[in-house]
Amino acid sequence: MDPMFREVERDGELDAVAVEEPLEIRVDGEPLSVTMRTPGHDEELALGFLYGEGLIDEARPVGLTDDFAANTIEVGGPLLRDPGQRRFYTTSSCGVCGKGALEEVAAVAGPPLGSGPRVGRELLATLPERLVQPGFERTGGLHATGVFDAGGELLWSREDVGRHNAMDKAIGRALFDGTLPLAERLLCVSGRLSFELVQKAAVAGAPILVGVGAPSSLAIELAADRGMTLAGFARRGRVNVYTGAHRVLD
Amino acid sequence: MDPMFREVERDGELDAVAVEEPLEIRVDGEPLSVTMRTPGHDEELALGFLYGEGLIDEARPVGLTDDFAANTIEVGGPLLRDPGQRRFYTTSSCGVCGKGALEEVAAVAGPPLGSGPRVGRELLATLPERLVQPGFERTGGLHATGVFDAGGELLWSREDVGRHNAMDKAIGRALFDGTLPLAERLLCVSGRLSFELVQKAAVAGAPILVGVGAPSSLAIELAADRGMTLAGFARRGRVNVYTGAHRVLD
Repeated sequence: MDPMFREVERDGELDAVAVEEPLEIRVDGEPLSVTMRTPGHDEELALGFLYGEGLIDEARPVGLTDDFAANTIEVGGPLLRDPGQRRFYTTSSCGVCGKGALEEVAAVAGPPLGSGPRVGRELLATLPERLVQPGFERTGGLHATGVFDAGGELLWSREDVGRHNAMDKAIGRALFDGTLPLAERLLCVSGRLSFELVQKAAVAGAPILVGVGAPSSLAIELAADRGMTLAGFARRGRVNVYTGAHRVLD
Repeated sequence: MDPMFREVERDGELDAVAVEEPLEIRVDGEPLSVTMRTPGHDEELALGFLYGEGLIDEARPVGLTDDFAANTIEVGGPLLRDPGQRRFYTTSSCGVCGKGALEEVAAVAGPPLGSGPRVGRELLATLPERLVQPGFERTGGLHATGVFDAGGELLWSREDVGRHNAMDKAIGRALFDGTLPLAERLLCVSGRLSFELVQKAAVAGAPILVGVGAPSSLAIELAADRGMTLAGFARRGRVNVYTGAHRVLD
C-alpha cells in the first residue's frame, strides 16, 4: 500500500486514513528538527524546510538513513547560519511582536518580490479546483500546496497532514529542479493562510499566493510588507484579494 | 475592537480577520517557547500548553508582562522536568518513530483513561453544531475546542488561529478551575484530529474526543493506546468511531 495511507478498521469496515509519523531532520549527523509529517517526498520536505528557514540556498545531498524504521533524514552541511538562533526573538527592548516577526522574514527573504505575472481574478478563483488532491479525496485528512504557471496550469502539487509540510515539499521540489525563485508562478493552498505559509512563499520568491480559507492578520501584514498578492476564500468562482491587487485583473 | 479581530481593507471594503501574533512563554524569566496565536485567554494558553507537555500539574502564577507591546507571558516555576529534553527523541538505537512518540505520551499521561461516560452516537454527531464559534462566524479563520458534559451541554469553548492553541486554552481553563482531569467530559474540535490534539486530550484525561474532520493514523494509534474514544467526520448527523467504541451507544 502507498506509504501515505493506512487502512484502519472503523465501525466494522476498512477505512483509509492519512499516515502521520515523526521525521527527524539531521544536518551533518546533528539532530535539528522533528516534524510530524506524511511519509513520501521526505527529501523535498527536508530541503524545502531548510530553505524556508534561510538555512540553505541550494540543494544538498539528502537521504533517509539506512534504518528503515528510523524516520530520520540526513542532510549535508554546513548551514548558512546558526540554526540555534531563536526565531522571532529579537532584543529584550523590542520584545516579541508581529513587527519583529516581519523583520526576521525580511532578513531571510531579501528584497521585496518582483513584478511577477498579472492574472485574472477568475483564474485565481479556479485554482483550488485545479489543485489535484488524490490523498484528500481518499482520506479527507491531507492539506495540499500546488504550483501553477501564470496561465493556471498545475505544474506539480504535494500533500501532507501538515499544511506547512505540504508547502515545504512543493518548494523543495523546485529546489531540486533549480527553478527557484518561483518568480513567475502562482501558489495555491487547500486551507487557511497563516503567517508561516506566507513566509515560506515569500522566501521562495512566489509573487502570488491563493488559499481556499481565511488569511490571518499577520499573514496579510507580511504579504503587504513583501509586496505579495495574497488572496483567500477562493471557492465557488469567487476570491478575496487582500494585498497586491495590482497583479489581479478584473 | 476585540483583540481577537482586526479590520482590514479588502477590495475597497472593511473586512474582519482573525489576529495572529507571536506569544513568548517564559518560565521564571527564561524564554521557553514561542507560539503564533490569537490574543485573548493567554494565561490559559500558557498553562494549558505547559500542562500538555507534562511540565506542570497545577495552576501557577501567570500573567502578561507590563510591556503591552511585548506579547510575552510569565509563568512561575519550577517545572516538573527539564523542558530541554527533545520530544520524540529516545535513543539512537530506537530512532524516531511513531512507537517512540506513543511511549513518550504514555510517560507524561500516566495510566490509560478510566471508564468515562457512555454516550449515544447521535449525541456525538451533534457536538459540532453545539460548539459555539463566534470568531469563526465572523472571520472564517479560527479553530475551536469545546468542553461538553456527558449530556452534550457545552460548558466552555475557546478559539484560536492554531487548533493546538484552542485546545491548550480550553484545558488551561480547566486547570484554573481545578477541574482536571476531564474524566466525565467530551471534547470536540472544529477540524482534523492530529496526534498532537489526541496527546493533549489524553494528558487532560478526556475519555472522548470528537472532530469535524479526519483523524491521522498516529492519532488513531495513540487513542487506541490510551483507551480513548476517538470519533471523526462528525457532520450532518453522522460520525465515524475509530477507537473506544465501547463508550458509544448505537
